Amino acid sequence: MHTNSTRDGNKNGYKNSNFAKITLMKAGILGGGQLGRMLLQAAANYTVETFVLENDPHCPAAHLCHNFILGDITNFDDVYAFGKKVDVLTIEIENVNIEALEKLEAEGVKVIPKPSAIKIIKNKIKQKGFYQVNEIPTSDFVVTHTKESLPHHHAFLPAVHKLGEGGYDGKGVQIIRTKDDFEKGFDAPSVLEKMVAIDKELAMIVAIAQDGSATLYPPAEMIFDPVLNLLDYQISPAILPEKVSWKAEAIALKLVKAFNSPGLFAVELFVTKDEEVFVNETAPRVHNSGHHSIEANYSSQYDMLWRIMLNYPLGNPDAILPSAIVNILGAEGHSGEAVYTNLADVLGMDNVFVHLYGKKQTKPGRKMGHVTIMHKDYQDLRYKANKIKHTLKVEAKNS
Amino acid sequence: MHTNSTRDGNKNGYKNSNFAKITLMKAGILGGGQLGRMLLQAAANYTVETFVLENDPHCPAAHLCHNFILGDITNFDDVYAFGKKVDVLTIEIENVNIEALEKLEAEGVKVIPKPSAIKIIKNKIKQKGFYQVNEIPTSDFVVTHTKESLPHHHAFLPAVHKLGEGGYDGKGVQIIRTKDDFEKGFDAPSVLEKMVAIDKELAMIVAIAQDGSATLYPPAEMIFDPVLNLLDYQISPAILPEKVSWKAEAIALKLVKAFNSPGLFAVELFVTKDEEVFVNETAPRVHNSGHHSIEANYSSQYDMLWRIMLNYPLGNPDAILPSAIVNILGAEGHSGEAVYTNLADVLGMDNVFVHLYGKKQTKPGRKMGHVTIMHKDYQDLRYKANKIKHTLKVEAKNS
Repeated sequence: MHTNSTRDGNKNGYKNSNFAKITLMKAGILGGGQLGRMLLQAAANYTVETFVLENDPHCPAAHLCHNFILGDITNFDDVYAFGKKVDVLTIEIENVNIEALEKLEAEGVKVIPKPSAIKIIKNKIKQKGFYQVNEIPTSDFVVTHTKESLPHHHAFLPAVHKLGEGGYDGKGVQIIRTKDDFEKGFDAPSVLEKMVAIDKELAMIVAIAQDGSATLYPPAEMIFDPVLNLLDYQISPAILPEKVSWKAEAIALKLVKAFNSPGLFAVELFVTKDEEVFVNETAPRVHNSGHHSIEANYSSQYDMLWRIMLNYPLGNPDAILPSAIVNILGAEGHSGEAVYTNLADVLGMDNVFVHLYGKKQTKPGRKMGHVTIMHKDYQDLRYKANKIKHTLKVEAKNS
Repeated sequence: MHTNSTRDGNKNGYKNSNFAKITLMKAGILGGGQLGRMLLQAAANYTVETFVLENDPHCPAAHLCHNFILGDITNFDDVYAFGKKVDVLTIEIENVNIEALEKLEAEGVKVIPKPSAIKIIKNKIKQKGFYQVNEIPTSDFVVTHTKESLPHHHAFLPAVHKLGEGGYDGKGVQIIRTKDDFEKGFDAPSVLEKMVAIDKELAMIVAIAQDGSATLYPPAEMIFDPVLNLLDYQISPAILPEKVSWKAEAIALKLVKAFNSPGLFAVELFVTKDEEVFVNETAPRVHNSGHHSIEANYSSQYDMLWRIMLNYPLGNPDAILPSAIVNILGAEGHSGEAVYTNLADVLGMDNVFVHLYGKKQTKPGRKMGHVTIMHKDYQDLRYKANKIKHTLKVEAKNS
């Protein structure tokens, strides 16, 4: 039934090299969060047999795969044993055991993206160095190792201090505006980045096939709440001057190609008032900024990653209609069993798509779901995005 | 965690009657085929806990639910025990044990559609009688009980003979053109229908919420191969004279409302050359004719059924863009492990969406998948539908 085709020289389940015939492959995902969940929803359009490794049996992706394996994605033995079960392996979070992935890759398991790319990206110091080596424009920075060394770099203020490894979802990042903030810095290998005067923040998703061919999604623009400085919603395709658009595409493509790895990558970019474009950060996986593509693009980022893994032709990243994403986050002050307040009001809107991640427990700021809005008119997107932000709440049952 | 909310008077998991708060419900599906598979893909947008009853552990839906229960959907005990585990229950095939559903309904499980509706629809004699009682236009017919009685009804020729119960996917249907064909008729309770001179065949999907409110999808038109008389592809929205469109909508809505049941219903209609509209058959469930709605309509038929079951507001059935569906059927002369020939050619088309149902074994005519095409221009839909028909083949590995 299954022929271990990636390992014995046949190309990834194709019966012959001209892509004529396709049979069943086994594919694993490290991590079982919402990104894994949406990957598995997309996988059910194809014939792939799916595996998930995650240490929480009630995680959002656990019930949507053929084979759920309980284990620690940061543990060598767990990742290695899991990888030996599959033909092709991907991640939905960077914080995985790289050594196991390297050994698996050496033994013929197709790891997408390559462990070498994950290794660079999961460490912010290496990520910044990679931008320098490859002449990718990025904000000025210095590497710091101790909190005491920070005052030497007062010329970088105002700055952002980012922990080299282990930070995620806003953790491991500190804003250092003045010398008084130095005490909030990290006492571990970190990057101190000069703050950029940002006009816009963009996200570009880039897909690289196993044969090296590439395609880009239209850029998405992040809209921030000017008071809270939190992501309010996201619009795609971003409306940009042609020059900025070209620059962003060229930089994102150059950067991602430099990883020399197939995969689906998200590149976060800053655009300054004088239309300079800097890379902020890169993710070597499906990304929050690409959720809208499920409904609003011909091939979603999830579909695209399956095409890459299964060695199918790349999909069409074009937008069907413009769209917005509103993230549904756990309300402040609420921890416990999640209830969705005013969900029916949002479900009743004509052109919105609700995605709840099935997390039983909410806590402040936790990503509990997202809503995509689709409309040819950007005004409708903005109006509904704001309305949804102020309507739908995730609270705890007994708060 | 779970509060059996449908049964103790709280409305379907809403914390209070104004729909303000929603918590986790348990929902069961009888049957685990491709319709169940696509239902479960859609379910992962919400927080529902899913259950599937099916006697094949490798069925297309088995790996996409929280709880897979091995059992026979036609067996009273299996269906009853399964139904006791859930708050709300639906079907993906009519051939289920009605008595168990009736008992479950009496005991407070929400069964959608109501067993009374399934009971009528699963028997073609009752279905025809129901059209008569409710003044729904349908072709003339007579009920037959033995093969020998057929010659008495030669005035109905040319006719279609349909077995009362147990027919599906073309089985249990015989064309009786002349007296010589009478021997092909069924020797069991059946319906002999006068053939209608058909100009077009349409399918209308109608959604009825738990509160009785209703919404209709745009009509789909079935395009048949004039030589083989097999469904070639389907286009939606159908391009129809306004009068026909109104008639089709009015008839479909009147019919479905007469079942007095929430649910998602598909109504197949004939349109004659003089623009009369007749009901051919009804299905009380998600349907092959609604697959395009996954990508091409704001709320897919699968999403819509979840909204009905979870007592959410009805979704928006409008088309985002016109679309076509091509069914991928097992090739003639091929039985065995499925391989998909020229799949990459279809995956490489710009505006197509491939759905494979994950069935390991193919046989002639078996529904193995479908492809949806989306485009504002109907000419593109027709061109690609024909191209896909002649490109993608499902064959057996060692044929």
